[in-house]
Amino acid sequence: MLSKTHSKYIQSLHHKKFRDADDVFIAEGNKVVPELVQSKRFVCTEILGTKEWLQQHEVFLRQYYNGPLEEVESFELEKISALSTPNQVLALFKKAATPAIELKGRISLVLDTIQDPGNLGTIIRIADWFGISNIICSLNSTEMYNPKVVQSTMGSLGRVNIIYTALPEWLEQHKDIRIYAAALDGKPVQQLKGIKEGLVIIGNESKGISKEILDMVNERITIPKIGEAESLNAAVATGIILSHIV
Amino acid sequence: MLSKTHSKYIQSLHHKKFRDADDVFIAEGNKVVPELVQSKRFVCTEILGTKEWLQQHEVFLRQYYNGPLEEVESFELEKISALSTPNQVLALFKKAATPAIELKGRISLVLDTIQDPGNLGTIIRIADWFGISNIICSLNSTEMYNPKVVQSTMGSLGRVNIIYTALPEWLEQHKDIRIYAAALDGKPVQQLKGIKEGLVIIGNESKGISKEILDMVNERITIPKIGEAESLNAAVATGIILSHIV
Repeated sequence: MLSKTHSKYIQSLHHKKFRDADDVFIAEGNKVVPELVQSKRFVCTEILGTKEWLQQHEVFLRQYYNGPLEEVESFELEKISALSTPNQVLALFKKAATPAIELKGRISLVLDTIQDPGNLGTIIRIADWFGISNIICSLNSTEMYNPKVVQSTMGSLGRVNIIYTALPEWLEQHKDIRIYAAALDGKPVQQLKGIKEGLVIIGNESKGISKEILDMVNERITIPKIGEAESLNAAVATGIILSHIV
Repeated sequence: MLSKTHSKYIQSLHHKKFRDADDVFIAEGNKVVPELVQSKRFVCTEILGTKEWLQQHEVFLRQYYNGPLEEVESFELEKISALSTPNQVLALFKKAATPAIELKGRISLVLDTIQDPGNLGTIIRIADWFGISNIICSLNSTEMYNPKVVQSTMGSLGRVNIIYTALPEWLEQHKDIRIYAAALDGKPVQQLKGIKEGLVIIGNESKGISKEILDMVNERITIPKIGEAESLNAAVATGIILSHIV
């Protein structure tokens, strides 16, 4: 049985302000929770699950986690869940320290003002698929610990280095690395092969890449359009570009 | 001012049962409504917008549409909207007749049990980007007139032929067209180039392509994984595959 105070506390973590205050975030679901529990990046501080779920997963969880396993009812999970379709398990994790990132000899993603949590989560999952270890986000990008982001990474959050920084200044400091940008005009992505090192910039869902940053780009990449759609979803564009250059 | 009866009627169209009964669907937003109004596929029967929006768009709309332009307040739109972030305009359209599709000499998409409305909408938009004119959906795929699908197509709904059919029987009838399928094992997508004709099957978000259909496939395509993510989002996979073979 979950106390009212504790239930309210977990609900407060749906909001960035309270996540920031305590340096914790929530993750939900049968897939995401076990993946993050075994990741070395985040320390799990509490797991709340239905009786059946905990029974099924206890042996696995205990390999990585010694904290409390709290049995809760489905209706209680529904109350504390940040998702429209609540799961059988919700867990609290400590946020990770800002990771050190190595740009040499690899491709890294740079996100300029990605605002949709589903898009950010999907991009993190795509990066993990293609073995991209670094994502550099502009300060006004959506927060990586937003519950919808955590959910849509499907566990990849524990395997990709993500930092938030003032992009123009950061790019200025890393001028030795070639900068590619997804744009509506540029070199067709099919012609880019075997790039071993570089930054690939993906822009905002509706406004694209900001002028200031576009001016620093070395090469524009485009996904040739054959039909009529005005644009592609930012996560889809990321997946297409990485599939061609990686 | 919107009458209570009319407001309730539009709300009822959030549900498939009522859309089916009247053969109408709703579309919302500054981008989607004008795109569908000018598409030749759907007949618009009613437009409800804020005073400002209607004033700004009246000249454009009147080129294609002679029906009522109803001025409503923002709070009224909020009530009838099917979206979490309501827009300045909502319109009703007649559903289209099932289109005739031509498979010869082109690539068509086949969706086996795509269930997330956002995914279906994004796939329709991707098809439109790559000039794919046909999408064949299994009967248990999410409905193309679901308000979230309509929203995430961003207007592409008016430019792609979509049919729903019993897939195994339909594929049996079109054995003269080569069948490709997105799978975890198969020929790397980077090696498939210049395919001029074929059906590309995309499977369910978590279960993939059903066994019965997989048995009818001529060639499996895979997106090589370099990192650790267990899977890619279905829409992202569609975009990647089309970008390589189109």
